[in-house]
Amino acid sequence: MQKIYLAGPDVFLPDAINVGRRKKELCAAYGFEGLFPLDDVIAEADGEPMDRLIYRANAAMIRRADLGICNLTPFRGPSADAGTVFELGLLVGLGKPVLGYTNVTEDLLARSRSAGGATFDPSRRTWRDAAGMEIEDFGNVDNLMIDNALIEDGGFPIIRHRAKAGELFTDLTGFEARLRLAAERHRN
Amino acid sequence: MQKIYLAGPDVFLPDAINVGRRKKELCAAYGFEGLFPLDDVIAEADGEPMDRLIYRANAAMIRRADLGICNLTPFRGPSADAGTVFELGLLVGLGKPVLGYTNVTEDLLARSRSAGGATFDPSRRTWRDAAGMEIEDFGNVDNLMIDNALIEDGGFPIIRHRAKAGELFTDLTGFEARLRLAAERHRN
Repeated sequence: MQKIYLAGPDVFLPDAINVGRRKKELCAAYGFEGLFPLDDVIAEADGEPMDRLIYRANAAMIRRADLGICNLTPFRGPSADAGTVFELGLLVGLGKPVLGYTNVTEDLLARSRSAGGATFDPSRRTWRDAAGMEIEDFGNVDNLMIDNALIEDGGFPIIRHRAKAGELFTDLTGFEARLRLAAERHRN
Repeated sequence: MQKIYLAGPDVFLPDAINVGRRKKELCAAYGFEGLFPLDDVIAEADGEPMDRLIYRANAAMIRRADLGICNLTPFRGPSADAGTVFELGLLVGLGKPVLGYTNVTEDLLARSRSAGGATFDPSRRTWRDAAGMEIEDFGNVDNLMIDNALIEDGGFPIIRHRAKAGELFTDLTGFEARLRLAAERHRN
């Protein structure tokens, strides 16, 4: 049975264990084994800091996985969770197919404009944030490296679904849509 | 001569080309060739969106590199630029050594507390952001996957240097410190 690494900021939820269980049950329903970062019980080790041990456990889990499904919902700013984005890059570098979903529908520039602080620089015909840094205007969910990694190294764009209020990090509609795709394309 | 991929949000600066040139000159001074994303002139191609072509060019440049130096300065929130973090993961997945710097000195939790919105959850003995999501408290610069990738896959922690006011994304002190380390360890 193929294994799917379940990347996302879900691990930071107060009920992270429960969300992980729901994702793993959905994986099983589609014929996969879901690997959730919190599955690994990390034992204290002499002289090794806990965060290092978690890193090693997650990286090892990613290497065991056959593919990854990444929750790319914006987290503490306009972009996805940094840990998830790192893991997306790692999956791509290891040659594993990646699928992704986000629980918002607007693109990066639209969200930046809604949040305020985005201004148009007519001399360079580009949008800039409050620090003067260019905001990409490609209609992507996130930085172009992220959206295009999904297309080039997974075969499908990030699916966008507008989560109901209060369910930004727990709505699994987009997750299940990408799982269904994985079942059609990657299950063996 | 070994090639260093120069990852960072530097590409979004109004004077990105100039910063890239300064970084490449520093690389040359330490015996390396610096590869800056904007070095590649991307030609329009029939039916291919520009952002896809940029993704391919950057990913190909990363595959040509021998190692990477990543600018992990917080960008539009408490974490590093998402594109840079993706590239860090890709470098690690490809087995290339990674070095990193940040132009702030406080850790993730301290910065989150300074910015407001971080509250302590006594029942779980953890810090939470305004959305109730746990904030890691390991003394790291960023998500534990990032800090530990540098230690585990590069051999050295992210170097922290407090940039002068107005130079958050252009101060190259930390960059040069990591370049010096690369020269000691990786040059051949």
